[in-house]
Amino acid sequence: MAIRRPVPDQLSATLAALADPTRRAILGRLARGETSVTELARPFAMSLPAISKHLKVLERSGLIARGREAQWRPCRLEAGPLKDVAGWVEHYRRFWEDSFDRLDDYLKKLQSEAKKHERKK
Amino acid sequence: MAIRRPVPDQLSATLAALADPTRRAILGRLARGETSVTELARPFAMSLPAISKHLKVLERSGLIARGREAQWRPCRLEAGPLKDVAGWVEHYRRFWEDSFDRLDDYLKKLQSEAKKHERKK
Repeated sequence: MAIRRPVPDQLSATLAALADPTRRAILGRLARGETSVTELARPFAMSLPAISKHLKVLERSGLIARGREAQWRPCRLEAGPLKDVAGWVEHYRRFWEDSFDRLDDYLKKLQSEAKKHERKK
Repeated sequence: MAIRRPVPDQLSATLAALADPTRRAILGRLARGETSVTELARPFAMSLPAISKHLKVLERSGLIARGREAQWRPCRLEAGPLKDVAGWVEHYRRFWEDSFDRLDDYLKKLQSEAKKHERKK
């Protein structure tokens, strides 16, 4: 049975939005509290339009929301899509934990061989 | 002090590679064990060159490795980059847990108000 090629989905949109260090830095700033676009742009050597473009990507993927009420339209972090990323990656935890266990076993083996070698000298 | 715009990094490459449902499905298949490209391509309604393109993206970002020894060059999952994704997203856990707590509080409030309303009838 053929699996049809899945259409781009919410999780893909979230991951694509996160695949940029500036956008991740913006989320990092918003984790400290909601703020204006001008304030967000300040630490970056970027123009306001460039920052606005990044904010639009984050907003479309639901990672931030912007206030409608105030003149300064504060940006705030929306954590729902991040929870979905955490949920997805969690399925693979056993793989990295396994590989660290194997590395740990290997290092212990190397150590015990080194000790044997020392004793022979 | 201006933060210089960060250059594309390993985490960005990983997230971009994961931002595709076919590539995530390939990782899901490899979680069940290493396999050949032909076997990997079978459940997808895609050509071998199309699958190979996805595998190259996964390989470049370190999410899979391919055997050099055997003729069939088996693909296997490499979990290191996934661990980095989990580590990054973990910093935001308190945000989605908080928002679920708030939703829970809100639902309890609604329930108690509904009960009060019932009693008045």
